Amino acid sequence: MADLDTLREKIKTFIEDRDWKQFHDPKNLAISLQLEASEVLELFQWTKDNQAKVGKEQEVADELADVFYWVILLANHYNIDLVQALEKKMDQNEKKYPIEKSKGKADKYTDL
Amino acid sequence: MADLDTLREKIKTFIEDRDWKQFHDPKNLAISLQLEASEVLELFQWTKDNQAKVGKEQEVADELADVFYWVILLANHYNIDLVQALEKKMDQNEKKYPIEKSKGKADKYTDL
Amino acid sequence: MADLDTLREKIKTFIEDRDWKQFHDPKNLAISLQLEASEVLELFQWTKDNQAKVGKEQEVADELADVFYWVILLANHYNIDLVQALEKKMDQNEKKYPIEKSKGKADKYTDL
Amino acid sequence: MADLDTLREKIKTFIEDRDWKQFHDPKNLAISLQLEASEVLELFQWTKDNQAKVGKEQEVADELADVFYWVILLANHYNIDLVQALEKKMDQNEKKYPIEKSKGKADKYTDL
Repeated sequence: MADLDTLREKIKTFIEDRDWKQFHDPKNLAISLQLEASEVLELFQWTKDNQAKVGKEQEVADELADVFYWVILLANHYNIDLVQALEKKMDQNEKKYPIEKSKGKADKYTDL
Repeated sequence: MADLDTLREKIKTFIEDRDWKQFHDPKNLAISLQLEASEVLELFQWTKDNQAKVGKEQEVADELADVFYWVILLANHYNIDLVQALEKKMDQNEKKYPIEKSKGKADKYTDL
Repeated sequence: MADLDTLREKIKTFIEDRDWKQFHDPKNLAISLQLEASEVLELFQWTKDNQAKVGKEQEVADELADVFYWVILLANHYNIDLVQALEKKMDQNEKKYPIEKSKGKADKYTDL
Repeated sequence: MADLDTLREKIKTFIEDRDWKQFHDPKNLAISLQLEASEVLELFQWTKDNQAKVGKEQEVADELADVFYWVILLANHYNIDLVQALEKKMDQNEKKYPIEKSKGKADKYTDL
């Protein structure tokens, strides 16, 4: 069973084996990340809100994996611990969005 | 120390506590994912290739955490195991990009 | 009264006066175009389908103008006549989407 | 010879003939705009800065026409006069970026 660290190592090796690091300046990584995020969005281009994407789980999983790949490559480039970075962000969100103020509201914290 | 599963649970609880699931149809999640990916790209808007973003690690970590957050929310929505989905993708990539053919080339696999 | 050609000339002069052409390689122009398109999308981030954006016309006009600005800069870079390029595209669309086949359907032409 | 107004009318008729207005809520238009802007960016995915896209003018023209199409559809939806909206924006830019302060600098106006 793979975990996140094993996967990061696997990706590193994949890149090194192919000598692709030369192409992976962070600007290009960020472009690829953006393009893959758009491919996720494309799956919902003409759907209605709340419209179940029944039978589309596999497509979403595939495109989301592509996004995750570039997230990990950018994180590797900067030696960012993704789980820790998101944990920190969640701690900030807990403060920005207190339950009593934000419950049931889609407002941005600056509008609460 | 948090790992990915702990983090996913934390995010689930955060959403449930605020009764935000009603806003999180997959189309909206995909829009948010795309918008955060654009904020990562914005950090490189006028940089030159290979230009070191010295002292920018923290900004990248912050924006990347936002992307990762929506990746996890979309994965949760569809019960996607992210690590497994990416592992599968990496196995496909190993076949699409054989080392001997793709070494040192930025070509798409269809052009190799 | 300004028309499109007058506007293109005005933008050219604006860039030349500021000596900004050095930053405007097409890759950077394309990044800026993408970022501004995301700002348009952001105006609809948590809206429901068909939800009138009453009182938001001005915001949409502002963000759309930003997108149009980068469209024109990229067109100028390649000496593309935008109106002609879109006219040609519309002629192709007329053939790809015959009225009798596509009426009332959101399908892509490849699925008609 | 087509001009912008003729083109807007042509697009309106194209949509009406196919009864597509029902799909064109502004949120969906904004998604399509974003997706087409990403296709422009994709043309530069692995290029180096300043790398001439020799022989790529036609591809850029095609993708840019797609972006322009959604810009016009969104403008039509809100009865926005695109040329006037951008003229107004240029007037604001003239003030935000005085020549003497911004000449030769890629800084945002807030950093000048």
